[in-house]
Amino acid sequence: MNDRIYINEVAPRDGFQIEPVFIPTADKIALIDALSPIDLAKIEVSSFTSPKAIPTLRDAAEVMSGIGRRPGVIYTALIPNEKGVERALACHTDELNFVMSASDSHGQANLHMSADQSLERFARMVDLTGNTATNASISTAFGCPFEGVVEPERVLDIVQRIAALGIDGVTLCDTTGMANPSQVGALCRQVIERHPELTLTLHLHNTRGMGLANALAGWQAGVRHFDAALGGLGGCPFAPGATGNVCTEDLVHMFEQMGVDTGVDLERLLVVAKRLQSIVGHDVPGQVVKAGTSQRRYPLPDAAG
Amino acid sequence: MNDRIYINEVAPRDGFQIEPVFIPTADKIALIDALSPIDLAKIEVSSFTSPKAIPTLRDAAEVMSGIGRRPGVIYTALIPNEKGVERALACHTDELNFVMSASDSHGQANLHMSADQSLERFARMVDLTGNTATNASISTAFGCPFEGVVEPERVLDIVQRIAALGIDGVTLCDTTGMANPSQVGALCRQVIERHPELTLTLHLHNTRGMGLANALAGWQAGVRHFDAALGGLGGCPFAPGATGNVCTEDLVHMFEQMGVDTGVDLERLLVVAKRLQSIVGHDVPGQVVKAGTSQRRYPLPDAAG
Repeated sequence: MNDRIYINEVAPRDGFQIEPVFIPTADKIALIDALSPIDLAKIEVSSFTSPKAIPTLRDAAEVMSGIGRRPGVIYTALIPNEKGVERALACHTDELNFVMSASDSHGQANLHMSADQSLERFARMVDLTGNTATNASISTAFGCPFEGVVEPERVLDIVQRIAALGIDGVTLCDTTGMANPSQVGALCRQVIERHPELTLTLHLHNTRGMGLANALAGWQAGVRHFDAALGGLGGCPFAPGATGNVCTEDLVHMFEQMGVDTGVDLERLLVVAKRLQSIVGHDVPGQVVKAGTSQRRYPLPDAAG
Repeated sequence: MNDRIYINEVAPRDGFQIEPVFIPTADKIALIDALSPIDLAKIEVSSFTSPKAIPTLRDAAEVMSGIGRRPGVIYTALIPNEKGVERALACHTDELNFVMSASDSHGQANLHMSADQSLERFARMVDLTGNTATNASISTAFGCPFEGVVEPERVLDIVQRIAALGIDGVTLCDTTGMANPSQVGALCRQVIERHPELTLTLHLHNTRGMGLANALAGWQAGVRHFDAALGGLGGCPFAPGATGNVCTEDLVHMFEQMGVDTGVDLERLLVVAKRLQSIVGHDVPGQVVKAGTSQRRYPLPDAAG
């Protein structure tokens, strides 16, 4: 079996964003520089949001300018508005990842915009991007922590409008870990069928333990691009307890065990993942770092035991 | 979508077995009595092993005799040898779950028997069971923490020999969480194809985060019976860090979200799961208890926020 997948490492953005303390700029740069040689397809470096809205990522420009760039790795950043586009382009961001919410209540809470307002804004943002690659992340695509169900037709309509703007890719985000494998498979199949021109990425959280099961279902449906966060960092500020992106090293481990090429050197990834706890100052949810890979062997117990 | 599944709750055996302190007999009985009305298909009550080998389950007979029996629920127990059969039958155990290891090194470490010796013993044990239902659990069916790879052909040969003994069901155990979804799907499909007469159960651990993904893959392959432990209790004494059966409430939650009937009342299950931490005296890995179900709604943040 082989049908390789592409990993977008989002810990520097989605992980560090929600940390209770500011991760020093030098630590952010050092982590990204340690991740670059591991051949992740993409790294989400930061978010060009208002420093007032997300003070933990107020150093987005310094981080983007300070990191080394490995050829072949795409250095992307989250962009909420026109100002963010300008700031990101000024420091040569490879890809601009626009963000909106499928549900209006989450959009209002997170971005002070409805879905329609976000899409209008995307049109103005696209005009500023020149030849820089673009992607649009759709939060709450599988359910909203305030409204509950988000109808697939609503998401498909948003995807269609994003495609019509000429944006290169779309990311379906299970922002608070509400998705289940049947739902993920069904929605991804529809997006792929209707929009073969778009690069589809799946952004999953492991809130209710279904992260890897949802990734499997997405992969079975044809998804080949996944967001994931080292150590399983991350969460959603509006859903306490909703912590944890799908863990990069656990995701890579599962697919590699299945014989699916991830392009990533798992052993080197695990070395970097082990440093994460000392950077953030607390335990992280990733499991392979603790248990070892499935290749791990134990010594035989004492024969008398 | 619907193709109902059947849950065997193994926390009273596989969970309590590895707890560092003896769970009082009354607490074990109270937990099982709280689980019985939730309509789990089966509950693994204890293990009729030598009290010297597993002192934490030395009260197997008292527990089996002390619990209330809900009609329709199968009260099973793990049985390593002839003596265990006699002890289990003496207290009217509904089903006898024989245990062996697919790999000789794990069998020697855990049971002081090779796979061949276990199968010879099974033949003698079957002679003692009368009309009582039987099942055989095959440890390390997807990999051994000492030897590594366990060839599928070896497992299929063992399953064939178990079926030839007239045992009613077989459980493939991923004892230390080494299995991946491709492997689970492939092996389960072969067992189901070759042995439609056997009830096939999947016993998964979440050691490397793949528990629910493996359950999904098993279900897609046609498996309808799953072992799971409340709170994700459990582990393997020979593989430190290899903690955690697939968590019952997380498994039920995933399948119910997918529209697959589990027969289980999730809300009532969660009420019992919340009591577990005080019984075992430590945090447990289950995630839905902490995060709430996917139906959970959060209040909208302050509009000014």
